[in-house]
Amino acid sequence: MKMNYMDDNGTIAALATAPGCGALAIIRISGKNAFSFAERCIDPPNKFKKASHQKIKLYKITDNETRKTIDEVTAIKYESPASYTGEDMVEIICHGNEIIIEEIISILIKQGVRLAKKGEFTRRAFLNGKMDLLKAESINQIINSTNPISYNRAIEIYNGKSKNILLAWKKEIIKILAEIDARIEFPEEDDFLEEKDKNKKSIKNLLSEIEKELKIREKINVLDSGFEIPIVGITNAGKSSLFNLILGYNRTIVHHEEGTTRDVISEEIKIKAAKVKLLDTAGINETNNTVELIGIEKSWEYIKNGNLIILVTPADKEISENEKAIIKEARNGKMIAIISKKDISLFGKKKEYFKAQDIPFVEVCLRNEEERHIILDFISSHINISFNFMEQGFGIICNKRQEEIIKRTDKKIKLVLEKMDNNYDEIISNELKEILFDMEEFVGETENEEILDKIFSEFCIGK
Amino acid sequence: MKMNYMDDNGTIAALATAPGCGALAIIRISGKNAFSFAERCIDPPNKFKKASHQKIKLYKITDNETRKTIDEVTAIKYESPASYTGEDMVEIICHGNEIIIEEIISILIKQGVRLAKKGEFTRRAFLNGKMDLLKAESINQIINSTNPISYNRAIEIYNGKSKNILLAWKKEIIKILAEIDARIEFPEEDDFLEEKDKNKKSIKNLLSEIEKELKIREKINVLDSGFEIPIVGITNAGKSSLFNLILGYNRTIVHHEEGTTRDVISEEIKIKAAKVKLLDTAGINETNNTVELIGIEKSWEYIKNGNLIILVTPADKEISENEKAIIKEARNGKMIAIISKKDISLFGKKKEYFKAQDIPFVEVCLRNEEERHIILDFISSHINISFNFMEQGFGIICNKRQEEIIKRTDKKIKLVLEKMDNNYDEIISNELKEILFDMEEFVGETENEEILDKIFSEFCIGK
Repeated sequence: MKMNYMDDNGTIAALATAPGCGALAIIRISGKNAFSFAERCIDPPNKFKKASHQKIKLYKITDNETRKTIDEVTAIKYESPASYTGEDMVEIICHGNEIIIEEIISILIKQGVRLAKKGEFTRRAFLNGKMDLLKAESINQIINSTNPISYNRAIEIYNGKSKNILLAWKKEIIKILAEIDARIEFPEEDDFLEEKDKNKKSIKNLLSEIEKELKIREKINVLDSGFEIPIVGITNAGKSSLFNLILGYNRTIVHHEEGTTRDVISEEIKIKAAKVKLLDTAGINETNNTVELIGIEKSWEYIKNGNLIILVTPADKEISENEKAIIKEARNGKMIAIISKKDISLFGKKKEYFKAQDIPFVEVCLRNEEERHIILDFISSHINISFNFMEQGFGIICNKRQEEIIKRTDKKIKLVLEKMDNNYDEIISNELKEILFDMEEFVGETENEEILDKIFSEFCIGK
Repeated sequence: MKMNYMDDNGTIAALATAPGCGALAIIRISGKNAFSFAERCIDPPNKFKKASHQKIKLYKITDNETRKTIDEVTAIKYESPASYTGEDMVEIICHGNEIIIEEIISILIKQGVRLAKKGEFTRRAFLNGKMDLLKAESINQIINSTNPISYNRAIEIYNGKSKNILLAWKKEIIKILAEIDARIEFPEEDDFLEEKDKNKKSIKNLLSEIEKELKIREKINVLDSGFEIPIVGITNAGKSSLFNLILGYNRTIVHHEEGTTRDVISEEIKIKAAKVKLLDTAGINETNNTVELIGIEKSWEYIKNGNLIILVTPADKEISENEKAIIKEARNGKMIAIISKKDISLFGKKKEYFKAQDIPFVEVCLRNEEERHIILDFISSHINISFNFMEQGFGIICNKRQEEIIKRTDKKIKLVLEKMDNNYDEIISNELKEILFDMEEFVGETENEEILDKIFSEFCIGK
């Protein structure tokens, strides 16, 4: 179903703060009837009517049908165009309780307001010329950043950095294009050798910058979606003990009998600034128990696909064939090891084995809370190693749409370089023109309804 | 550690909206230096300096050390005493992202602001005479209500209902006390038979009202802390299938092998308005597997203590001895039954058994999504039966402190009634005076530092 926003001038409302329990919450109302709808539930209505632009005052919210007081609130009027959306807007600041929020919104809906769609406030702001597309998109990234790296990039985009870079790229392309088009038109003049070399160098530079941006994007994607860290190992190695120690409470039954964790149990946690999905996987062993088999199959998947693999291995046993298979399966450089039960045995050979394999490790007992920080620091340092890319570029891409455009551009630029070797000037000229279109699309100079639908449907409601 | 708030005139700050991700978030600052501290990070500071009382304006937050822009925000100045706390206050409305919130608060802290303690804003409001104690306490209840029943009570208390009731009770007691004290002073006059009867009737009425209030409180306590519903039964009855069907996604491995759910797995959900803690318990069977034994012991605990017990029992088997033991263990009237696998067998005897035992039941397959609503309605109606007390009284108690005072009063009133039968006027007079003290304590006329510490430490930070 395609939503037609252009025809939709209705007045919209939504919760604008995070859902859940807090001292306060903000409900936003926007549209040409925002004031008159709000007057029908804000009490006393005359006080609200007389309130001046951008002035916050104390009111009650009353259900006119039941005359029941819903809450004591403050509210602010914003007169068009001096508001976030550019329309008349009201912000109601109520107590931060779900029941109150639902009651207030349902009273507004009874008056004729409708619930805002995802990103509809920002979409209106964009359509009313309050901000450009890149700024609108960066707001979504600012709100949803789960780590300081992607937040810092988003703030820079909000302040216009990516637009400036794109415009510089565009300028460069226009220059080259003008030169090539001149050559096509007046082929009799010179052989343009010097110009060709210069153009090729420019295009190579551009390609290198674009490739850097795509690499940064890939890493930020992983960071944003949660860095997956499965805890793997043979049965009874101490995987659940490690899982619980990291989480800091008793989540699974930890027991000495083999094969206790049949489910893959996962928790989303923060380790330093990074969002991590920590997984307690089933122990790898030989079994004909069908339930355990399901679990073990899942474990192998995580060993193959995790972002960082933690192998837990007991100090009192030699490396088993199963463990060797795990180490082989995990790709190079993404495994770290925790040697458990060092209080029982300090079996020197295991340490030597990990050193030889170039797998970082720590030795612990997994029996006391004090080891928690050692383990967290160890894991955190290896998360950071995976994301050490601060110096590699700007980070101008902040969502899927922008990523797709830059990927398209990347391919076209490679084609241009190839054709430059063969002097296919007309093909080059066409590709460069398409690249220009891409760049205009990126900064929002050629937006259409469908693209806007896609962009704003990824926002949260209330923004 | 006792916190000394009286000496503490520091400027405080905290997030006031729910934590998590949203379009917006509010950070509150309160104290005599609120404006000057805010000026040091609000950009441009002069615009903020010139901004008038209760006027919202657009700014940036800048880290003065690094000159980095943290966010684009709006901010409101409230000049003392026209603010929530009665002090100078600033509300900063920033984008609703944890990283931004943390950065802004840490910049404020660098300037000399300190993080607010729990309930410190409301405590200051109370100490500065902006609201009475009952209103302050009701705010906490308004924010934390998890169901419409306790929220409606809290709003009424906020609007002064409990204070009015307490003052009426107090007036009644003062009248009786005056009469009894007169009798003690002038014992020679009359025999006061009529007055005695009237007083006794008044005290009995008061006792009945207080007992109603305590009963309502008990039920609201259960509602607020989450209604515990364990799903119990023999192994392989379909408990995990029911659990997953209610939750609407695959949370546990559901498998035909016996004893699959070794852990007690729980999820907090909402069934209609009620907060429910749904528990998937281990199947009751005979076992010598030590891990399962832990689980089964837990299951028996839940059968004993759950608020509503759901017995899942397969249609294709007779009632087993284990099931009979479960039914016996669950106290009267708090068990409902789900007969599973009706697609396999419609074993009539099982239905007859539940009818005879007066245990409500439904028959389902547990194989398709459509049954979800039937099951939720069935469970919901039995939750409501447990909480059908709307007509029983006002609900003037909204926290532990108030509950303890009313419990004390309850005991004293019973003692007064007892002594009335024996004409112990002096004892009665003393008890009534103590009851008066209790009532003054309830409405906050005799508050002290320690009681305030206790009350406000139960608030959330930011309120």
